[in-house]
Amino acid sequence: MEGPQAVREALAAGVVTEVFVDQARDHAELLAGAAADVRISAVTEQGLAALAETVTPQGVVAIARHAHVPLEAALAGRPALAVVLAGIADPGNAGTVLRTADAAGASVVVFPDGTVDPYNGKCVRASAGSLFHVAIVRGGTAEGAVAALRADGCTVLAADGHGERDLDALLDAGELAGRTAWVFGAEAHGLPTSVAGAADARVRVPMHGRAESLNLAAAAAVCLYASARAQRRPGVLS
Amino acid sequence: MEGPQAVREALAAGVVTEVFVDQARDHAELLAGAAADVRISAVTEQGLAALAETVTPQGVVAIARHAHVPLEAALAGRPALAVVLAGIADPGNAGTVLRTADAAGASVVVFPDGTVDPYNGKCVRASAGSLFHVAIVRGGTAEGAVAALRADGCTVLAADGHGERDLDALLDAGELAGRTAWVFGAEAHGLPTSVAGAADARVRVPMHGRAESLNLAAAAAVCLYASARAQRRPGVLS
Repeated sequence: MEGPQAVREALAAGVVTEVFVDQARDHAELLAGAAADVRISAVTEQGLAALAETVTPQGVVAIARHAHVPLEAALAGRPALAVVLAGIADPGNAGTVLRTADAAGASVVVFPDGTVDPYNGKCVRASAGSLFHVAIVRGGTAEGAVAALRADGCTVLAADGHGERDLDALLDAGELAGRTAWVFGAEAHGLPTSVAGAADARVRVPMHGRAESLNLAAAAAVCLYASARAQRRPGVLS
Repeated sequence: MEGPQAVREALAAGVVTEVFVDQARDHAELLAGAAADVRISAVTEQGLAALAETVTPQGVVAIARHAHVPLEAALAGRPALAVVLAGIADPGNAGTVLRTADAAGASVVVFPDGTVDPYNGKCVRASAGSLFHVAIVRGGTAEGAVAALRADGCTVLAADGHGERDLDALLDAGELAGRTAWVFGAEAHGLPTSVAGAADARVRVPMHGRAESLNLAAAAAVCLYASARAQRRPGVLS
C-alpha cells in the first residue's frame, strides 16, 4: 500500500504488518489507527522512494498480509451481490470494477486465474481501499466460481454486449431482486464461451444511442447499480 | 482519427477531408464509405507512423473537419438528455463519458472552456466514435451552459458525491422522467460551487457498501442510465 488513504484503509482492515514513514513528516494521526503489533519505521525520503512503485507515495508505504479468502468462506456470508472478474488483464479496470462493486453493496469479488492479481499495485490503487472492504477470492477457474455461486443459490448473470436478455427487461420482470452474481470479462474479447454459457443468462446493457458498446467500468456500474436498486425496492417494479 | 473504427465513424458522419492508408494494406471495404470529395493517399508504413499519435494506427489515419455546433443549434433539437463536462482535464475520462452519454441516449455533450478539447486524440479514441454521434458543443462557460439548458426547459442535475439529493430518491419521486441535463466534474476536485449552485439539484449516487465514492466514468454511467430508464418507463416508478 502506498499513500495515506490506502494505508489508512489497510490499517483499519487489520492486515498491515509494517509501515514505513518519511521521517521528515508527521504521521501521528494516520498511525493512531495502527494496532500494537504493527512495526513502524521512520526512513528517509529516498528510502521511501526505493520501496514505492508510485512516484509520489505521499510519505507513507505499508506492507500488508494477503487478505483473500477461499470461495467457500466468502459464500458462508450468503452474499446478496457478488462479482466474478473473468479474464480481466488490465489492473486499473479490475480495481475500478472492485471499487464500483463495493459501492453498489457487493460483498464478494472473485479474481480467478487468468485475471490480474488483486494485489497488483495499480489494481490496489484503482480500488481506492475497496480491496479491504469486500471478501476477495483469488484463483480457481471462472467456471468453477460460476458453478459454486449457482449452487449457493445466486442467479449468475454474464454481462455481454450481445447477450440474449436486455437489462431493462430483467428489471421489468423483477428478476434482479434476488441474490445475484455478475460476471464481467475484458472489454476487447468479452467472456469465454465456457463462462458465459455457464451463467443463468447473458445480459446486455441497452444501447439507446449510436454507441456500439460501453467500456467495462461503465457497463459494470450500470449492471451493479441496477441490482442494488432492485434488491432494495422489492415492492417496486424498478 | 486513427484506426479503422474511428475513421469509419468519421466517414459516416461526413466530416473527413483526407484519408491516408498504408499502401501495403487493402482498405477497399473501409474506403467504400468515403464520399467522392474525400482525398485518399496511399503512403508507406513509416509515413503513416509519422502522421499518427498512436503507436499502431492499424494502417489508416484520417483528417476531419471540426464537427461541433453552437449551443443554440444543439438546443434546437430539444434534447431529452444532455451532458455538461465541467472542468474535466483528463481526455480519457472525457471521452469515456461521451461514449456513455451516447449509449444512454444523450444527444448533446458540452465541453466548456476549462475542460479538455473534444478533439484531443485520447478523447477521440476513448469516445469510440461517439464524438460523431452526438451534438458536440465546445467553449463558453459551464455556468452559461447550465443557464441555457435550464432556460430551454431541462432540469439540470449536478452529480456530486456530497449532493443533497439521493439518485434513488429522485427515481422514486419520478423526477428523472422529464428532459434532463447532467453536469459532471473532475473526480478529484468535484464541481466548482458556481456550477453546482446553478443546477436545479446536486445529486449523489448512493453508496451501499464502504466505498467512499465512485470514479467519474462509473458515476456518470449510473446517473445517465437512471435517466435513460426513467424517460422510457414513464408509467413505472423506476
